[in-house]
Amino acid sequence: MIAEILNIGTELLLGYTIDTNSAYISQRLSSIGIDVFFRTTVGDNRNRLLSALNLASQRSDIIITNGGLGPTVDDITFEVISEFTQKKLKFNKNILQDIALHFKKHSLKMPSCNRRQAYVPEDSVILRNKVGTAPGIILEYNKKLIIALPGPPFEMKPMVDNFVIAYLKKRFKLNDIIKSKTLKVAGLPESRVNEKVKDLLRLPPPITLGIYASPYRVDLRITAKAKDNKTANSKICKIEKIIRKRLKNFIFGTDEDNLEEVVGRLLLKNEKTISIAESCTGGLLANRITNISGSSNYFKMGVIAYSNKSKINQLNIPEELIKKYGAVSKEVALAMARNVRKISEVNIGIGITGIAGPTGATKKKPVGLVYVAISMEKKNICKKFNFIGDRITIKIKSTEAALEMIRKQLTKNAKQKTHN
Amino acid sequence: MIAEILNIGTELLLGYTIDTNSAYISQRLSSIGIDVFFRTTVGDNRNRLLSALNLASQRSDIIITNGGLGPTVDDITFEVISEFTQKKLKFNKNILQDIALHFKKHSLKMPSCNRRQAYVPEDSVILRNKVGTAPGIILEYNKKLIIALPGPPFEMKPMVDNFVIAYLKKRFKLNDIIKSKTLKVAGLPESRVNEKVKDLLRLPPPITLGIYASPYRVDLRITAKAKDNKTANSKICKIEKIIRKRLKNFIFGTDEDNLEEVVGRLLLKNEKTISIAESCTGGLLANRITNISGSSNYFKMGVIAYSNKSKINQLNIPEELIKKYGAVSKEVALAMARNVRKISEVNIGIGITGIAGPTGATKKKPVGLVYVAISMEKKNICKKFNFIGDRITIKIKSTEAALEMIRKQLTKNAKQKTHN
Repeated sequence: MIAEILNIGTELLLGYTIDTNSAYISQRLSSIGIDVFFRTTVGDNRNRLLSALNLASQRSDIIITNGGLGPTVDDITFEVISEFTQKKLKFNKNILQDIALHFKKHSLKMPSCNRRQAYVPEDSVILRNKVGTAPGIILEYNKKLIIALPGPPFEMKPMVDNFVIAYLKKRFKLNDIIKSKTLKVAGLPESRVNEKVKDLLRLPPPITLGIYASPYRVDLRITAKAKDNKTANSKICKIEKIIRKRLKNFIFGTDEDNLEEVVGRLLLKNEKTISIAESCTGGLLANRITNISGSSNYFKMGVIAYSNKSKINQLNIPEELIKKYGAVSKEVALAMARNVRKISEVNIGIGITGIAGPTGATKKKPVGLVYVAISMEKKNICKKFNFIGDRITIKIKSTEAALEMIRKQLTKNAKQKTHN
Repeated sequence: MIAEILNIGTELLLGYTIDTNSAYISQRLSSIGIDVFFRTTVGDNRNRLLSALNLASQRSDIIITNGGLGPTVDDITFEVISEFTQKKLKFNKNILQDIALHFKKHSLKMPSCNRRQAYVPEDSVILRNKVGTAPGIILEYNKKLIIALPGPPFEMKPMVDNFVIAYLKKRFKLNDIIKSKTLKVAGLPESRVNEKVKDLLRLPPPITLGIYASPYRVDLRITAKAKDNKTANSKICKIEKIIRKRLKNFIFGTDEDNLEEVVGRLLLKNEKTISIAESCTGGLLANRITNISGSSNYFKMGVIAYSNKSKINQLNIPEELIKKYGAVSKEVALAMARNVRKISEVNIGIGITGIAGPTGATKKKPVGLVYVAISMEKKNICKKFNFIGDRITIKIKSTEAALEMIRKQLTKNAKQKTHN
């Protein structure tokens, strides 16, 4: 079963909008064993959309269009599908009711142009939109399936999750299950991870391993196809065990985990509280930590001591220390971590000081020089980093490093506890 | 002159990677008057890539491929272009030197597989890669132009900016200039902006106006095509004047401006310093402000007072005030703003307190309730918001609102100054 995604929208082609929908749709399709071999993007243009539909119907079994279902005249997806399939546009009372209800719910008057959205190609299965006005449709044509979805991600996603996937599974009797598990690696560059799992990257289907690297992270994705959940899981489990044996504590989480979440869970589990004193990261570390719901249980305070005066007044850093070693130094990072821990009466204090650039560097202290310190009751650690990148990259890398250091300490503690 | 972008990479089709390259390339092409009518994504698969090349060469004049130039065996772009154009792969000594230099610069040993990247289709113009290993190429074939670029954005972008655009301008004698200017609007919903510029949205080329909305912002983009810079600018200027007359101070900037940058410029210009006390935004406001290079000139301190204790100890908020009104209240927001201003001895203090959710709401205080306060020498203001969205959306909307409030105050001051 081959699917093709057809993105419709001049704003996509012009580069004003980044397409994140395709990735979402592809992942959901792949979870039920449907491959996407082509993806095409066209503007809001009748002829080019027709030719794209035509081509897609020749090489794919399922065509999923995305966008062009809005109320304005440049939204032409239903019209063109109607022309392509020779299925007339027909007014649908239920859709209009949904649309009217939507406006009522938001205490707004329904503009007359929205009536247009209630005209859909006849014989379509209607996909109701509970968060917006544009309905989706599923339409069989010449043994091909055309599925039209709205462009806004928050409208498209529930439609895919609540209707499309179930429909496709039933329609094509997709009994095979495709499961994936991603192991997330921190603190090792891609080349090192690659070396350690090289042999597994050439596994033949139905079980495969992929390696995906970003500037901050390496993901290892295990994918298995099987008749049922249990078999798929056991296949994945087998490979996971081998990888975990090789990469050990460099694997910090799985699937959608990120470091701030994992660190949050570890803090909760170990009943530890944390406060942060940041300089060059300017609040990014606190922001990431507080992105996690429930973080108020362990995160108590952040101080962004950007000026030296604030370091002195808010964090009680001795002025002499700054004068002697400089604000960007191991000594100041450690003092920031220690003092923020003491001031806010928490278990763990973090101190970050560095030069995010592009200005502020000296000969001895280049852009990218960052000190990250952790202060705990019985232990103080400071690490020096030389990051490469622009201001924002250096901020991100610094917070990744800090979160990874916290994680290492918390898992070390856990291990020691188990050993005792 | 019609271009087609051909993205190559199984990770794109599987949805592991979001394609941001196409948007960048499209924007750069559009600036020299080249339209992109189709964009196709295929996996690392010889047959499908061949068919996509074939199709693209039938309907477009310029084919820009992206990705598949890496050193590993699944990187097949050059091989397939070679097969499609009948131009043999030829070893290029200069490319190998560039690659070797790249590894030397990073004190790494060159893996033998990277040698593969030095084989390119004969008769190609070589696009040197100064930040990575994969070279790009430009190749004429059957009166079509094939341009192959590496996938990593930081390698692709300089190649486009430094070589491709100039090459295309010269090759196709593109003398027409296409200029765009975006007016950025804050504090007004799309529908209100739409009403105010409705008539201008139907302007005929060579001057057009587009409206693009995100959950936090509305952009108005004016585009003009002309024989020279001066004519294009004067066309844009004419429309800009009309729009500015209608939207006045709701326009906060142009083009790549964002609120943190604009606020930063205003703070510098007005010689004002700022400190921030955040609760529900957890450091996001400080993070955004410090994303701007040079922000240490006006941003002095941030306190993320997540716990009540930190509000009391770090910001001297009276415990009774919190007990009486609650931590999420106008009174506490104002006290946070006032106290952080006084403690850090700056001109402007910001206080934000609210419920980012999903937990923490009460009957009287729902998720999304946020108070933003500004404290200045002679004036204290607090605004109440009821934002809709998930935790992260509410954090973003709160910081947008805060930045917009600061901007309004700073531009108000400027106006009063001019009037006196």
